[in-house]
Amino acid sequence: MEPGNVTAEQAGEIEEQRSGKGTTLRPSAPLLEEMLYTPVPVLDRGFVRCVDYMGNDDAIVQAARVSYGRGTRKAQDDANLVRYLMRHQHTTPFEMCEIKFHVKLPVFVARQWIRHRTASVNEYSARYSILDREFYLPDPAHLAAQATSNNQGRGELVEGEEAIRATELLEEGAKRAYGEYEEMLNLRDGETIDSSRRGLAREIARSHLPISVYTQWYWKIDLHNLLHFLDLRGDPHAQYEIRAYAEAIEGFVQRWVPTAWQAFLDYRRNASRFSSAQTAALRRMLKGETVERSDTGMSAREWREFEEMIGGASQP
Amino acid sequence: MEPGNVTAEQAGEIEEQRSGKGTTLRPSAPLLEEMLYTPVPVLDRGFVRCVDYMGNDDAIVQAARVSYGRGTRKAQDDANLVRYLMRHQHTTPFEMCEIKFHVKLPVFVARQWIRHRTASVNEYSARYSILDREFYLPDPAHLAAQATSNNQGRGELVEGEEAIRATELLEEGAKRAYGEYEEMLNLRDGETIDSSRRGLAREIARSHLPISVYTQWYWKIDLHNLLHFLDLRGDPHAQYEIRAYAEAIEGFVQRWVPTAWQAFLDYRRNASRFSSAQTAALRRMLKGETVERSDTGMSAREWREFEEMIGGASQP
Amino acid sequence: MEPGNVTAEQAGEIEEQRSGKGTTLRPSAPLLEEMLYTPVPVLDRGFVRCVDYMGNDDAIVQAARVSYGRGTRKAQDDANLVRYLMRHQHTTPFEMCEIKFHVKLPVFVARQWIRHRTASVNEYSARYSILDREFYLPDPAHLAAQATSNNQGRGELVEGEEAIRATELLEEGAKRAYGEYEEMLNLRDGETIDSSRRGLAREIARSHLPISVYTQWYWKIDLHNLLHFLDLRGDPHAQYEIRAYAEAIEGFVQRWVPTAWQAFLDYRRNASRFSSAQTAALRRMLKGETVERSDTGMSAREWREFEEMIGGASQP
Amino acid sequence: MEPGNVTAEQAGEIEEQRSGKGTTLRPSAPLLEEMLYTPVPVLDRGFVRCVDYMGNDDAIVQAARVSYGRGTRKAQDDANLVRYLMRHQHTTPFEMCEIKFHVKLPVFVARQWIRHRTASVNEYSARYSILDREFYLPDPAHLAAQATSNNQGRGELVEGEEAIRATELLEEGAKRAYGEYEEMLNLRDGETIDSSRRGLAREIARSHLPISVYTQWYWKIDLHNLLHFLDLRGDPHAQYEIRAYAEAIEGFVQRWVPTAWQAFLDYRRNASRFSSAQTAALRRMLKGETVERSDTGMSAREWREFEEMIGGASQP
Repeated sequence: MEPGNVTAEQAGEIEEQRSGKGTTLRPSAPLLEEMLYTPVPVLDRGFVRCVDYMGNDDAIVQAARVSYGRGTRKAQDDANLVRYLMRHQHTTPFEMCEIKFHVKLPVFVARQWIRHRTASVNEYSARYSILDREFYLPDPAHLAAQATSNNQGRGELVEGEEAIRATELLEEGAKRAYGEYEEMLNLRDGETIDSSRRGLAREIARSHLPISVYTQWYWKIDLHNLLHFLDLRGDPHAQYEIRAYAEAIEGFVQRWVPTAWQAFLDYRRNASRFSSAQTAALRRMLKGETVERSDTGMSAREWREFEEMIGGASQP
Repeated sequence: MEPGNVTAEQAGEIEEQRSGKGTTLRPSAPLLEEMLYTPVPVLDRGFVRCVDYMGNDDAIVQAARVSYGRGTRKAQDDANLVRYLMRHQHTTPFEMCEIKFHVKLPVFVARQWIRHRTASVNEYSARYSILDREFYLPDPAHLAAQATSNNQGRGELVEGEEAIRATELLEEGAKRAYGEYEEMLNLRDGETIDSSRRGLAREIARSHLPISVYTQWYWKIDLHNLLHFLDLRGDPHAQYEIRAYAEAIEGFVQRWVPTAWQAFLDYRRNASRFSSAQTAALRRMLKGETVERSDTGMSAREWREFEEMIGGASQP
Repeated sequence: MEPGNVTAEQAGEIEEQRSGKGTTLRPSAPLLEEMLYTPVPVLDRGFVRCVDYMGNDDAIVQAARVSYGRGTRKAQDDANLVRYLMRHQHTTPFEMCEIKFHVKLPVFVARQWIRHRTASVNEYSARYSILDREFYLPDPAHLAAQATSNNQGRGELVEGEEAIRATELLEEGAKRAYGEYEEMLNLRDGETIDSSRRGLAREIARSHLPISVYTQWYWKIDLHNLLHFLDLRGDPHAQYEIRAYAEAIEGFVQRWVPTAWQAFLDYRRNASRFSSAQTAALRRMLKGETVERSDTGMSAREWREFEEMIGGASQP
Repeated sequence: MEPGNVTAEQAGEIEEQRSGKGTTLRPSAPLLEEMLYTPVPVLDRGFVRCVDYMGNDDAIVQAARVSYGRGTRKAQDDANLVRYLMRHQHTTPFEMCEIKFHVKLPVFVARQWIRHRTASVNEYSARYSILDREFYLPDPAHLAAQATSNNQGRGELVEGEEAIRATELLEEGAKRAYGEYEEMLNLRDGETIDSSRRGLAREIARSHLPISVYTQWYWKIDLHNLLHFLDLRGDPHAQYEIRAYAEAIEGFVQRWVPTAWQAFLDYRRNASRFSSAQTAALRRMLKGETVERSDTGMSAREWREFEEMIGGASQP
């Protein structure tokens, strides 16, 4: 594979795309143009690359000014308007920007990703084409045990013998399954294996492959829905593998709409939401009262989340 | 008009619907059944009535238990699971409940309402049918002046002469426009006015009517998207007239999914969201520090919103 | 108003936008660039202008080739691939192109338009801003009587006295309503009318205006959903006024994605759909049989539609 | 497994659900009630069961009558109105019915299914729970070779030695992968295998399983979008495995909304769409002309499709 986890053919395509500078009257995003088409490697063999976009920070402002009229023109400068929109969940102006990515990702990541329905997708079809011999194998640094504290996540690292054995199983399993996939297709490296056999239909044979197999797709989404995706998939509770993609995408968003991105960090990602009971407790604490969980009506879990949000503050 | 702002014909239809009790294996919501089909009057001539629903609090739990597996069965009772889902924005189980309303509402309210795209709508068509002589006239208690503090809302009441004049203008304008609408249609109370005339097409003539004219629609939406609607349209910043509909709908939701509704109140409506800077300021205050806006990086507006959320707490 | 039904301020903005040519690595659509930002007048005072776009015919091909794999590369040239996708309703590659319009349109047209939910909209808000004194008045050539043959459309022209009277009513009604709107706002041409009055909130006063009043919005949609919009709103059964907008938009689409547009004409707009019974009748006729409605199971209406589709062919 | 491919636990749940008859004022669909909750087996180990629904044929009529007004009441009986709506693609009334299924299906089928974005889904999570030892193994009658005539589908059956070998590979591969999955989890039949090991996180270990593994979900969709799903997934070009699910669902739809279903068959599934060029050729043939492909502008493929639609009719 070439740098960026692309094939030689794709590398050629990218070079061609990067050399085709043209003129346009459309608004553009110069920092994003620098990265256009270039793959950012993700996981062991995946990538994300931005292949097109529409709009920039100004497009958000332009749409908001239509809605909120002339008055807004004097009152607020552009960055403050974007921040105001984000703070108050005026989400429609963020829909006015659109971006398109080409992504190479394992199938189990694709299955989480596709839950975000407000996007357009064209995926590589294993009915039409033969899948490549590419599988996700977790790096030892990500080979974790089941978390004991929650039902969902990862706990401490699996190490030593156990780690070696797991890696072997994953790797050999993938190789063997791919070999058998080729055998069933009666095709190896594009050549017929045995001319007396028919070869199984691709759409059946592919069911034999593990869900760690890599697929590819074009994915197009507007900024509002992308930020929602990043909110959920960039969260520490998201599975590490999809989070790695979210982080790569964040690098593009920051170059595309830096003002909106900063507003997102300030008002969503790094914001805290206090429930009704938590807000009440907070107010009492700020008045100097000592607050016990028992008089707040919070569950043990909600109280733990509360303490975390207020930063383990000891009361005055 | 009959009680509930319905026509005599509609009143008959409702009576028929309420008398048709049948059996079903489907889950049901007994408290909502009591209100099924019955119109709740809204504004001077509008109404909301629930005409069908699917699911109840249990349907949310059922869907969540599929996703989160057997483990959840022991760990949490149903109400806590619903509350957990709401707190952590696991929104898909709330999509498993669906509700359908028949609504009579002024056109300018319909225009705000329709922005919520994730719903199904069938509206009365003024191309096919003649609109009724029904217009929204604000009650004196809602005849407010333009707010001076924000660009959007209402300020103090308009009273005395000015109120009387406004009410007259609105009322007479609507009457006159309707009379002229009939004249253009060449139809008055279903009778041809002048047999030598053709009468204008309904789709043109209706453009003459003020946007205070009442229309009707069937509106169907899932619970997740309905809660989002209520979050925005039940908010004090929403225009009074659509808020009145949101409140009527809330009465139905409370009977339909009481557990989800209480969770919504606790974790969304009455929750507070603190930005990154506000959270930092909060933590400092809880440690006993005196915090000035100037060292927080907040704008004057953000600071004002902060003070409001913490309840004007004086520091110890 | 300036040419193109824009204000002087908008004309300035457009000139500025048209002078800002930059460079980009993104794919572009040169014929559409020629028209970018320039308003195409629609109806008496409306317009449509394209303010941004993403992708072109190649973007459709690129997405399809990802899905259908390498095999497609040799087999079909690009135009044939686009035509194949259109013919077989492989719609997702058409979602890979996106376009944004700035539209000025009467409220009753906006109400039909907004039914298309798979789009993003930012509309001028009459809560924040005062609406302009601009109303749609149908040209005499579009002042038609109610159709007698169907419940929905327009029939023959209304002429003479009746036409003059209708035009007067529409025009005077709009003027009077706008004057009263200003009176209620206590503002005329931006000046306070009577300093002893408060002025009604904009969000109430606007309910007095007829639904022929013009509004504006930014509207962003992908090509697949846009073609669906054009299929329905460019249809002869659509109301003339929204059809006028659909036609203006078609001019842009033709310049943007000429191959997809031609495929749309051939396989959707000018295609005919024969029902099961119609297909059976057709086959019998092609075999030389004489077919009577009575042995086809078609309703009178379905039969009429059938005869129309086969072009009133007399049988051999 | 119990009949219907459910677990003993699920069988108990179903029995309980089927015994809970209650009363409701809601419209119901008696034929569908008979089948409610009961699983219909699909493929070797999958099923579809209907677990809830909203509305019936009358709900479509009710919504249409709101839109098209009183006039429709006399003119058309209910069934004809539903047929008219279907024929003329008035799709919104069909959105007024909603249905919810519980489905057990292989992951590769789930991946095709989920492309239909206008639905709500809650899927079994392999991050929270351990997947069952259940894999799809094609019946010999469905073990087909790659089609040679098109890039996508299946051709003739694979038989004899080759079939036996393929079945062995698929079966043993699944068993082995599942055994290794358990080994990595350090859990076999719910028991810890080796207390000195940690066991890999479920979210990693599952990547080892083949995409033939069964998953489960609740899937909720409105009738309009469901018919679109059935149009595409019940089509002969769809992969056999998802078509098997589409057929099972069709059995439910037929019981739920028999009138709409018949209209769907007549006006969509068994309808034929002729392109612009095909319509022109058709008209000429009906006038008795002999038409050659060369003067129609059709590609060879379009001509072949044309001949198929007209039933290989020899001209008189």
